[in-house]
Amino acid sequence: MAGVVTPSMWLWVLEDAATGRRTFCSLNEGLGKVLRYGAYGPDVLTRLRWLGDVLGPLLQAAVRAAGPVDVTGILTQMLQMGDEAHNRNRAGTLMLLRDLSPAMVTSGWEAADVSEALRFIGGNDHFFLNLAMPACKLALDAARGIDGSTMVVAMARNGTDFGIQVAGTGDEWFTGPAQLADGLFLGDYGPDDANPDIGDSAITETAGIGGFAMATAPAIVRFVGGSVPDALATTRRMHEITLGENPRWSVPVLEFQGTPTGIDVTKVCRTGILPQINTGMAGKLAGVGQVGAGLVTPPAEIFPKALRRLAELSRGYSS
Amino acid sequence: MAGVVTPSMWLWVLEDAATGRRTFCSLNEGLGKVLRYGAYGPDVLTRLRWLGDVLGPLLQAAVRAAGPVDVTGILTQMLQMGDEAHNRNRAGTLMLLRDLSPAMVTSGWEAADVSEALRFIGGNDHFFLNLAMPACKLALDAARGIDGSTMVVAMARNGTDFGIQVAGTGDEWFTGPAQLADGLFLGDYGPDDANPDIGDSAITETAGIGGFAMATAPAIVRFVGGSVPDALATTRRMHEITLGENPRWSVPVLEFQGTPTGIDVTKVCRTGILPQINTGMAGKLAGVGQVGAGLVTPPAEIFPKALRRLAELSRGYSS
Repeated sequence: MAGVVTPSMWLWVLEDAATGRRTFCSLNEGLGKVLRYGAYGPDVLTRLRWLGDVLGPLLQAAVRAAGPVDVTGILTQMLQMGDEAHNRNRAGTLMLLRDLSPAMVTSGWEAADVSEALRFIGGNDHFFLNLAMPACKLALDAARGIDGSTMVVAMARNGTDFGIQVAGTGDEWFTGPAQLADGLFLGDYGPDDANPDIGDSAITETAGIGGFAMATAPAIVRFVGGSVPDALATTRRMHEITLGENPRWSVPVLEFQGTPTGIDVTKVCRTGILPQINTGMAGKLAGVGQVGAGLVTPPAEIFPKALRRLAELSRGYSS
Repeated sequence: MAGVVTPSMWLWVLEDAATGRRTFCSLNEGLGKVLRYGAYGPDVLTRLRWLGDVLGPLLQAAVRAAGPVDVTGILTQMLQMGDEAHNRNRAGTLMLLRDLSPAMVTSGWEAADVSEALRFIGGNDHFFLNLAMPACKLALDAARGIDGSTMVVAMARNGTDFGIQVAGTGDEWFTGPAQLADGLFLGDYGPDDANPDIGDSAITETAGIGGFAMATAPAIVRFVGGSVPDALATTRRMHEITLGENPRWSVPVLEFQGTPTGIDVTKVCRTGILPQINTGMAGKLAGVGQVGAGLVTPPAEIFPKALRRLAELSRGYSS
């Protein structure tokens, strides 16, 4: 159509220095009426155009001048500052601003644009989520394709199905029905407005943060529901289904214990404990956007499915 | 002397909107070799000149353009982000940057100066302390001069004496010897390098944060010493010597209980529990600066002294 210009969709690029492997993520638009939750309309498009025309190239200039952002380092710090890096990214967002704002100011962009960019990022506590997710993806991709390994390397949902991939089973997805989250709602929305579990963000739990690190972010219960003792108990419980602790991502209130990392399909099957995800809820009607945030688990049956496949592959090797 | 120009010493001005009462504090220089811990030398003076010539007027322009900073609101949030607002002010500092940086950018100052100012504040996790202290002072000044009140309205130390003032005893100081803090040291410094307890910063504990809110800042034990269970126990213990809880300043991990606020001289005398302060340690040799941070209490005898005076005044009223 004449006069319609597709806005540029800028991406963060994260690189594993050891392997050169890369992951990607868009710029976080905020909460509520946003494209990634299915909202559209003039305000959504206006924001996307500004992200494409101003914020994207301004951040590009700042990152190129300041050098790579130490995303893992920020994750280490934010886990000591009440963020679990899925539904709380407030401290992470502020540290990103701290690291990039000096170079944004000297980028050559107009002061008014820089000021608006600082205000937008500072007003969007979830801005850092879109760096936390690809960082988790990058860490987990390093564990893919290890024969016999029972470690979950991805959990993702599309609003209908919930799927996992496992290190020892290649690119195969083990799927079951996506569940409804139990949580708190934005504005006047309620349970009837929510779509079943959707999105890629459970990559954070897969890497041991998000719901797995709720003990370090007790204030989050005011956003996703549940109680403070539940939040502490959740992190402790996740240690029962994970292979190890991440010493770089530690939880001060649990005496600096590392986050529970590496979901083990066999441990999930043996204990019956399901991974705890805290997540946003999309509206079930197209165009609505985000309606709330809450707690959700995968469907239980996908873990025995994965274990069965691992066993089949194992018999294959030994025969 | 010809050629010597005294640098301007800029101050934060905090105002209680209800009364017009004001308190004041200088700009935080950082840790280590800084004037307020007794360090001097060319690097200290160079920094002070830059604070006077650039940072002070730049912040003035930003505050005048953006309007007053909501210091109490930042305190509310930072207590949910691992800061106790005495020895951890990392989240508070970042929120101050978030609130002022847009107006700093459009202040008309050179981009290079704005960039340097953002880098300086972002690199000094204690920058917000100099807003937390006068906010606490302002809150406590509202409680001064109430006949018969046993509430402590100030605790301060000068490196030799530790003194308290009480709401019911006017401007009188009840003093005893300043103690040595027990804690952790910067660089190669050790206990022999430390001066007894010094400074005004215990105004934070007097208002119910700092050491009183350690439960919300468990990561602080890596800076001031002690253990995570101690940090949780300390906040609980301080409730035994305080008059109330501050519902605006709550501790998520203690199920959002308000901070223990308003030290009661009679409760301290009855329980024998002393206020817990976590604080910086100055070097005992002039010129050294800060050598560490640790935990310290007031000398026990000053509370019975204050109680005796309250009793004398009370007899005066009833006779």
